[in-house]
Amino acid sequence: MPDLNAFLAPNAVAVIGAANDTSMLRGRLMETLLGHDYSGEIFPVSRTSREVMGLKAYPTVGDIPTAIDLAIIIIPAQFVTETLRECGRKGVKAAQVITSGFAEEVGEKGAQQQAEIRRIAEEFDMAVCGPNSEGFTNTRAQLAATFSPAVAANGTSLVPDYRRDGFVSAIAQSGGIGFAYFDRGRPKELPFNYIVTTGNEAALEAMDFVDHLIDNDESEVFLLFLEDAKSPAKLVSVAEKALRAGKPLIVSKVGRSDSGRRAAVSHTGALTGDSAGYRAIFNRYGVIECNDIDEMVDIAASFSRWRTRLPRGRRVGITTGSGGAGGLLADIATAAGLEVPILDAATRAEIDQHLPTYGSSQNPVDATAQAVSTIGYARLNEIVASSPMVDAVIGICSAKNPASLRRVQDGLAALGRETTNPILLCSYTTPSRDSIELVNRCGLPLLDNMHGCARALVEMAGYHEVRERFLKRPPTTMPSVRSPRAKVAPRLTRAGRLLCEYEAVPLFAAYGIPTAGGRLVTTADDAARVADEIGGKLAMKIQSPDILHKTEAKGVELNVSGSIAARDTFTRLIANARIFDANADVRGVLVQPMAGKGREVIVGVKRDAAFGPMVMVGLGGVLVEVLKDVALAPAPLSSDDAISLLDGLRGRSLLDAWRGDAPADVAALCALMVSLSQFAADFADEILEIDLNPVLVHEAGAGLTVLDAIIVKRQ
Amino acid sequence: MPDLNAFLAPNAVAVIGAANDTSMLRGRLMETLLGHDYSGEIFPVSRTSREVMGLKAYPTVGDIPTAIDLAIIIIPAQFVTETLRECGRKGVKAAQVITSGFAEEVGEKGAQQQAEIRRIAEEFDMAVCGPNSEGFTNTRAQLAATFSPAVAANGTSLVPDYRRDGFVSAIAQSGGIGFAYFDRGRPKELPFNYIVTTGNEAALEAMDFVDHLIDNDESEVFLLFLEDAKSPAKLVSVAEKALRAGKPLIVSKVGRSDSGRRAAVSHTGALTGDSAGYRAIFNRYGVIECNDIDEMVDIAASFSRWRTRLPRGRRVGITTGSGGAGGLLADIATAAGLEVPILDAATRAEIDQHLPTYGSSQNPVDATAQAVSTIGYARLNEIVASSPMVDAVIGICSAKNPASLRRVQDGLAALGRETTNPILLCSYTTPSRDSIELVNRCGLPLLDNMHGCARALVEMAGYHEVRERFLKRPPTTMPSVRSPRAKVAPRLTRAGRLLCEYEAVPLFAAYGIPTAGGRLVTTADDAARVADEIGGKLAMKIQSPDILHKTEAKGVELNVSGSIAARDTFTRLIANARIFDANADVRGVLVQPMAGKGREVIVGVKRDAAFGPMVMVGLGGVLVEVLKDVALAPAPLSSDDAISLLDGLRGRSLLDAWRGDAPADVAALCALMVSLSQFAADFADEILEIDLNPVLVHEAGAGLTVLDAIIVKRQ
Repeated sequence: MPDLNAFLAPNAVAVIGAANDTSMLRGRLMETLLGHDYSGEIFPVSRTSREVMGLKAYPTVGDIPTAIDLAIIIIPAQFVTETLRECGRKGVKAAQVITSGFAEEVGEKGAQQQAEIRRIAEEFDMAVCGPNSEGFTNTRAQLAATFSPAVAANGTSLVPDYRRDGFVSAIAQSGGIGFAYFDRGRPKELPFNYIVTTGNEAALEAMDFVDHLIDNDESEVFLLFLEDAKSPAKLVSVAEKALRAGKPLIVSKVGRSDSGRRAAVSHTGALTGDSAGYRAIFNRYGVIECNDIDEMVDIAASFSRWRTRLPRGRRVGITTGSGGAGGLLADIATAAGLEVPILDAATRAEIDQHLPTYGSSQNPVDATAQAVSTIGYARLNEIVASSPMVDAVIGICSAKNPASLRRVQDGLAALGRETTNPILLCSYTTPSRDSIELVNRCGLPLLDNMHGCARALVEMAGYHEVRERFLKRPPTTMPSVRSPRAKVAPRLTRAGRLLCEYEAVPLFAAYGIPTAGGRLVTTADDAARVADEIGGKLAMKIQSPDILHKTEAKGVELNVSGSIAARDTFTRLIANARIFDANADVRGVLVQPMAGKGREVIVGVKRDAAFGPMVMVGLGGVLVEVLKDVALAPAPLSSDDAISLLDGLRGRSLLDAWRGDAPADVAALCALMVSLSQFAADFADEILEIDLNPVLVHEAGAGLTVLDAIIVKRQ
Repeated sequence: MPDLNAFLAPNAVAVIGAANDTSMLRGRLMETLLGHDYSGEIFPVSRTSREVMGLKAYPTVGDIPTAIDLAIIIIPAQFVTETLRECGRKGVKAAQVITSGFAEEVGEKGAQQQAEIRRIAEEFDMAVCGPNSEGFTNTRAQLAATFSPAVAANGTSLVPDYRRDGFVSAIAQSGGIGFAYFDRGRPKELPFNYIVTTGNEAALEAMDFVDHLIDNDESEVFLLFLEDAKSPAKLVSVAEKALRAGKPLIVSKVGRSDSGRRAAVSHTGALTGDSAGYRAIFNRYGVIECNDIDEMVDIAASFSRWRTRLPRGRRVGITTGSGGAGGLLADIATAAGLEVPILDAATRAEIDQHLPTYGSSQNPVDATAQAVSTIGYARLNEIVASSPMVDAVIGICSAKNPASLRRVQDGLAALGRETTNPILLCSYTTPSRDSIELVNRCGLPLLDNMHGCARALVEMAGYHEVRERFLKRPPTTMPSVRSPRAKVAPRLTRAGRLLCEYEAVPLFAAYGIPTAGGRLVTTADDAARVADEIGGKLAMKIQSPDILHKTEAKGVELNVSGSIAARDTFTRLIANARIFDANADVRGVLVQPMAGKGREVIVGVKRDAAFGPMVMVGLGGVLVEVLKDVALAPAPLSSDDAISLLDGLRGRSLLDAWRGDAPADVAALCALMVSLSQFAADFADEILEIDLNPVLVHEAGAGLTVLDAIIVKRQ
């Protein structure tokens, strides 16, 4: 791995392509770079100028007399690879390639040149970021290696000088968005330390920077913008590392093309789009997904302050001097998934001492404009934050004018240091710069959107929950020695691309996955004999890898009773199959006992192109087919994973007591999901999709019946 | 009706309670009032001072030598009514009562004093706003009758002086929120003409002001904040008038207490909360509901510009110089309900002339930073807005620096004048004040949040649709002379509080509502005879106003066949009813033919406490019971209303062809909803709730069967 320190915190920088003309990006970059008080050395490199913005310019990087840590390359595309090689030869440790026109170009040439950049980076073990990047900024080193106007010198320091911790890094594949995080976050006093924009990622990827910064303990919170993860495995391992370290990743993932759905063979494949794999990984590792730049900033601002004092639940206290604003926030908080409980009597009594008779200490605590000005924002929020009924507080204020905040500055600072429940101040008027800085100096975030505040609390509480569960979780194990993989593998290999139920069932059985039993019959006589042996009412189903939708092919008959009916049914099903598809490879008819009553569930597996096998679960025909109410998680699953996956379904309560039925056997369903996930993990490279559909989950204690099953192998 | 003009645009104003001390609200109000260039006369009234802020003060309003249009009253609560009476005697036409401590107080006294304010207003025909109000502002008259810091003089005019139309009024029950709209909207160049905060609404209500401003043609767009509508009928009539006039109401409605649910008798009652009535009225009249202050401002800014050029559909073209921002917006737009279609070949060819090979003209049109600076924002958006494939355009830009906008200022102005498709510019960097003013002077809104832009387009397209439908709709008629009301009324009056199916069916039948038929039997012999007469398989159901949940009471038997079984069943059902509730008033057993297959629907009526009878519809057991997927609209319904109500259900596609079934008979379902709505409207004062549950909707052409029905009368 190349030296990312040389990239992020260089002592000497060459700007290859430096220019005086600030109407060009090359000139703007120089202007931005020189506008800040960077303490390292800057060497312009120019083919045409002897001097750039007062600095001596060199014809080539090789001409620079001293060692260079970082080369910033902003020259026409056709010269980039040769220049990069020159850097390598000089021993330059890192390069930021700004130039566009590589893999984003139509045609082969750009892609080839980009591949060449990667080869050069490897050859010289150089830390190369880009091409097609907008550059990066190290705020504490005051190094703004970019033409982005967001970090142009404007009299405001790049990072609030009073912050000592809680630093935020923005790492983005898009330069525009990466610097937009800074542009919107800095006015809210968000302490960015790095903004890195990775462009086409010929060599270094966004996740390499996250990885490095977690290890170096420099950043506590990450804002990420991803169009795709070049190395999905790296995304997974870095996400896991970040969660372990308690450093939240707040990610905007764009490009939800669901073209993959169209080609799917199974139900499971058709129900889950390309983005579902990302979402499953994000859910598992507590990655916070958000696509609103302002809300991402609010979430980051909240974590930056409260990462060591996260809310332990979703109960929020609301304080306000405006009854209307309090009511509005209560609605917004409730809709976001927070609770706004009535406060305990002791807390209310303490508040009531300060309120006029037309105030309310219930929650929202409407202290009225009058009482807010006597009791003050600090004491009011302190009282509510100490209530045993809340996990966090949102304190509504009007911060247009800083006077009422300045009056209680010491109290706010004490609150910032001492509160155990996190507090967000939220101004319903546009807060002034002075107010924002004042509150932040007191150790509290001051936000200005109620939705952003509610969302931040929901995400902090959720992150805390996921992380607690994660830290208790046994490490994901490789298949145990007792895994039936070795026994099952040869049979899977021998089978065709599509295994229908009679073929899939024995493989599943080896993994302890319960099946409906039954026998494959190939003649009418067989059917009659088996019917007698099984007895009772029977289900009979055609078995052919060419007939996936059996109902459509009239290939299923239910409630068949007795040997005579079984014989007739066999003949009819075979005939129907021939009519449906004369060339179908018909293997016979599966005869099974009819299953008892139960709730309909679909359980499946889908091999995500990026992240490997995922287990899917969905409830009931209507919810799955009309609302696509399904949930996905990477295999293998623990029992806890299975439970929380089920809990994520909108229709989860269907499995509870419902319409006079007892609760369903959720334990059996979870066991099925865990076993299937182990099967999927064992054959991650072999299997494309699995459907157990439908599964009938009987009442608690009565288990479940898998009514149909297919396995689709990768081609 | 008192003279709202005297209130909103007075020539002479008395400030009763005026003070010099700006640490008090009374002094702040004077300071704010005098800080602007209001051309009318201002007379302070003070018991203690002879002069306030350089103006001669009078001991009482009666001492003022000239006529007064408006009195602003900001004195202790106990003096308010007497002072108001004094104003009345002097002939003051309007009063703004700021003082708090009336109906919001605990106890009777405040409420009584508030009622007294109303009586005085009526006695003197005075336009009284408040009490407990934060005051109001008429921006064009530069009259800021409030202590709100949001309109304190700060060097910026209260309203952009270049605007000639598209004015926005903010009318709010909460002073904090009302002025917050202005505080957040003014920096975006939103042209507010009035901000009115109505407080406790002893006399004038928010809707009175909206009504007046629609008539006076002064405002084109309304931002409203409502905690409750004091006169629901006024809300309905003003909402209808606003829609007819094409002046959108953008409303934040808070206080969604759903306590009403708990007391409900029927399913319909239990499924719909107190806020459902508001939502139904809003849906019918195109009222836009939003509870995010920033988003409300964005929606208002968009309507303010494009109210006469609303998008005719939901297809949006996206232009960008940042590929990342374009991808992000495409995701956001799609999630918000917009389409991002690929552009037509002609438009693409025109764009492609300007793009480097690594740009894209598909949509989002990623022109790249390079091409954006050559082609310019004006021309780029013009080309896309002319595409026949789009109904509107969002043009992403970086407006931190106004230079690139200033360069194409004339083009932007031409675009503002000439485009037929609305265009929103959206800056991903924080736009500078100069940029915002520049773009707005060109006739285009410049917003800064992608979600806000997407939401604004969705709301504009939806408003256009609702209004087109509304303008084509025949006026809601009173029950026609052929209404069966007269025939049905006496029977409804005679019945007890709860009518079970056998009693409800004949009433429904008079309105053409199809029922399952069948006959009430009261003896086992009767049951046997009727079973023979009807023939085939039968449903038998206990009939008792005391047994609502028949299944629970084992009061239903299905698939009863023949007279012997019918006789046994009768005896058993009656016995079960006795076991369930020995005191139940059992009327007999209803014997009906079994219905054919169909999709399960619930149709009901609920009398909303504020808005009268509402028709409810929901699909399928699971969707209704687990997800509460129901929709509500005020009775009576037209056929179009019924169709759009159904279309609002998440599970609507269940009525289409599904799982091998043909489409359901939607026409029959709509006819049922229309007939039931007429019944509900005819008996608006008599009926509390109606359940038709379940209704089986058969395949298209085969109609439907109402399987059970109850009517709950008001007590």
